[in-house]
Amino acid sequence: MKITIWGDYITKFGELWDRSLEDLLKEAMEGAILEAKINVKEIEAVYVANMGAGRLDNQLHLGALASSLLPHYPPAMRIEGACASGGLAVIAAEQGLLSSSYQTMMVVGVEKMTDAKTAEATEFLAGAADFKREYGSTFPALYGILTLAHMKKFGTTRKMLSAVSNKNHRQAMNNPEAQFHKEYSIKEISQSQLIADPIRLLDCSPISDGAAAVVLTTKNVKGPKILGFGQGSDSLTLADRKKLTELGATKRAAMGAYKMAGISAVDVEMAEVHDCFSIGEILAIEDLGFFKKGEGGKATLKGSTADGGKIVINPSGGLKAGGHPVGATGVKQIAYMADLIRKGKVNVGLTQNVGGSGGTAVVHILGGGK
Amino acid sequence: MKITIWGDYITKFGELWDRSLEDLLKEAMEGAILEAKINVKEIEAVYVANMGAGRLDNQLHLGALASSLLPHYPPAMRIEGACASGGLAVIAAEQGLLSSSYQTMMVVGVEKMTDAKTAEATEFLAGAADFKREYGSTFPALYGILTLAHMKKFGTTRKMLSAVSNKNHRQAMNNPEAQFHKEYSIKEISQSQLIADPIRLLDCSPISDGAAAVVLTTKNVKGPKILGFGQGSDSLTLADRKKLTELGATKRAAMGAYKMAGISAVDVEMAEVHDCFSIGEILAIEDLGFFKKGEGGKATLKGSTADGGKIVINPSGGLKAGGHPVGATGVKQIAYMADLIRKGKVNVGLTQNVGGSGGTAVVHILGGGK
Repeated sequence: MKITIWGDYITKFGELWDRSLEDLLKEAMEGAILEAKINVKEIEAVYVANMGAGRLDNQLHLGALASSLLPHYPPAMRIEGACASGGLAVIAAEQGLLSSSYQTMMVVGVEKMTDAKTAEATEFLAGAADFKREYGSTFPALYGILTLAHMKKFGTTRKMLSAVSNKNHRQAMNNPEAQFHKEYSIKEISQSQLIADPIRLLDCSPISDGAAAVVLTTKNVKGPKILGFGQGSDSLTLADRKKLTELGATKRAAMGAYKMAGISAVDVEMAEVHDCFSIGEILAIEDLGFFKKGEGGKATLKGSTADGGKIVINPSGGLKAGGHPVGATGVKQIAYMADLIRKGKVNVGLTQNVGGSGGTAVVHILGGGK
Repeated sequence: MKITIWGDYITKFGELWDRSLEDLLKEAMEGAILEAKINVKEIEAVYVANMGAGRLDNQLHLGALASSLLPHYPPAMRIEGACASGGLAVIAAEQGLLSSSYQTMMVVGVEKMTDAKTAEATEFLAGAADFKREYGSTFPALYGILTLAHMKKFGTTRKMLSAVSNKNHRQAMNNPEAQFHKEYSIKEISQSQLIADPIRLLDCSPISDGAAAVVLTTKNVKGPKILGFGQGSDSLTLADRKKLTELGATKRAAMGAYKMAGISAVDVEMAEVHDCFSIGEILAIEDLGFFKKGEGGKATLKGSTADGGKIVINPSGGLKAGGHPVGATGVKQIAYMADLIRKGKVNVGLTQNVGGSGGTAVVHILGGGK
C-alpha cells in the first residue's frame, strides 16, 4: 500500500500579526484540498500538529476546531512532540492510512507564536527540553552545549557554523513563503549578537507564525510518494545523553526510514533538515549519513550542501531563514519536498524534524514523482 | 489482526499533592508492564494522552519524558483532544498496531490538575469548548444549556439528574482507586450548591490527578480484546449544533465501533461513559443506543443503569465519583473495563470518552476475555 501526497500547501511564514490561528489553519487546509483537486468530503480525518495553542492562544481543542472548519466534521486529533509535532502527526496519519482506518487524510500543522512576548515564547519552548527547568536552561543554552562539544571534538569553527546560516538565507531567496528574504555574509553572521556562547543571533531560527498542510491518500493517484518513515526517541535531557556530538534519535529515525524505503543516504538528492540552530544542521547531515561524523561543518563551508554541491540541504531556507512556526515545521518540510518532487526538481528527498534538544526525531523519505 | 489488552493499570485518582506528573506516569507505566508480565523492551512505542501539562506543569515534551522513563527510549508522541485525549491516544495506538508499525505498544494517560487553582483549571478546561472565549462560557455553563434543552424537550427532571450522581457515588464504593468514597442521597445532590443553573455541585465531576496505562499487542496472547473502535467529531461550539439534545460525535463514534465489532447496543453488558456532568451520562446512554432518545433520565431513576439493571453504567463510579484527571480518563475507562473482562465479570463492555462539549467522541468495544 503506497501513500501519495495528493496535495500540499504552505502559508507565508513570518510575523503575521493580521492572521489568527484559525485564519492560518483555514488557508493551509483549503490550499491543500484545492491542489489535490478533490471534494472536501473525501477528507476522512484531520490530524493537527501544534505545540503551543493551549498556552499561547487559550485554544485547547484544536482537532475539533480544524474539523469544524470543514463542512462534514471529520474525526480529528492533535499530535504533539514539541518542535517535531509536524513530523509525528504525519507518522500518525500514515499509521491511520496503513491500518486501513482511512483512505484519505489531511495533516495540518500550525503555530501562532509572535503574539507572545519573546521571553514568554522562549520560556514556553524551553518546556520541551527538561523534566523541570530548575536551572533555567533555554534552547540556545542547550544547543550552545551541543555546539561546544562539536567544536571541541572535531575542530568545527565559527566560520563553519556561519556557513550554515549564510547558505540557508541565500536559498530562502528562492522561497516566496520564507520568513526572511535577506542575505547575510559569513562575517555578519559571525559578528552578530552573542546569545548563548558560542551561539549568535544569526545562528538561531526565528519565532514565527505559519501553517502547512498535506493531503495523504492510499488511493491509486499520481503524485509524490512516501517511500519511508521512521521515528526515534532519546533522553529528554542532555544530561542523560551518552554523546553530545550526535542526536541518537535522528540516527534511529533515519535507520527506520532508510530500511522502509530500501535506500541509503547516498541515494538522497535533497533534504530539508531541522536547523533550529546552526549546529542542528551540522549534526543532521552527519547523523543522516550524508557526511562522516565530524565532517559536517567542513562540508558546509566547502559548499557541498548548497546548490550544485554533493547534496542540497534546506532548499527552502530551512528553519533559519524559512521560519519555524513550531507545529507547522515538520509538515512544511514534507510539503516543500513534495512540491519539488512534483515539479521534477528532485527524485529522492528526505526530511528530518527534531523535537526538544533531540528527545524526538522524525525522518521521511519522499520520491516517485514520475 | 486482533488487538489484546495485555496489561493495564490505574493509579489512585484524587488530590495527590505528594505525587508529581512523572511519579504518576511512572507508576501507571510500570504497573501495566508488570501486569502484562513482559520485558520492558517489548514496548516498541509509547503514546501519551494529556491535555494540560504544557500549561499547568510547564512540560511541553511529554512523549519524550515518558520515553525517558523506559531504559530503551522507544518512539513516543503525545495525543490530545481535550477530555477525549485518552480515547484518542488508544485509537492512534490501535492504528499504529494495525498498520504493522509496531506489535506491542503502551498508551499512558496522565493529568496533574490539583496544583492549579480551581479558577485557573476551570479557565484552562474552557479552552476546549470554543473558538475564542469572548463571552466567558465555562464547561458547567455549556452543559447547563445541554441540560436545559433535555429537560424542556423530554421532561427530564432534577431528580433524574441526581439519580446519575447518586448511582455513580454508590458504585465508586467498589472501586478502591476512585477519588470519592462517599454516598450522597438524591435529596443531598438536588440541594447541593447551584453552579450554572440547573447544574449543581454534585452534578459535576471533580478536578483530579491520576494516570492510567494499557499495554496493547497484536501478538497472539490471552486477555481482553479490542472488538471495535470509532471516533466522531462535531462542531467545536454549541452554537453551531443542529440539536442540543444529543451529541452527534458520540453517535458517529458508536456507529463505527459497533460496525467494526459486528454487534449492536443490545449486546453490551456494561459501559463506562463520560459523565463529566449528570446530563453527560443521560446523553451517552441514549446516543449509544442503550435507551431511546429522551428516556435516559427515566431509566436512570428507575435503576435500569445500576447493578442488577438492564445495563450497568459506570461501574467504576464514572468521572463523577471515580475522578476525572482529563488525559487519563479515556485510558482509565478502557483499563477498568479490560480488568472486569479479565476477571470474568463482563463479556462485552463499551467505553465512551468525550472531548469539549461534544466536539470529539471516542467509543471502544471490548470483549473476548475467555
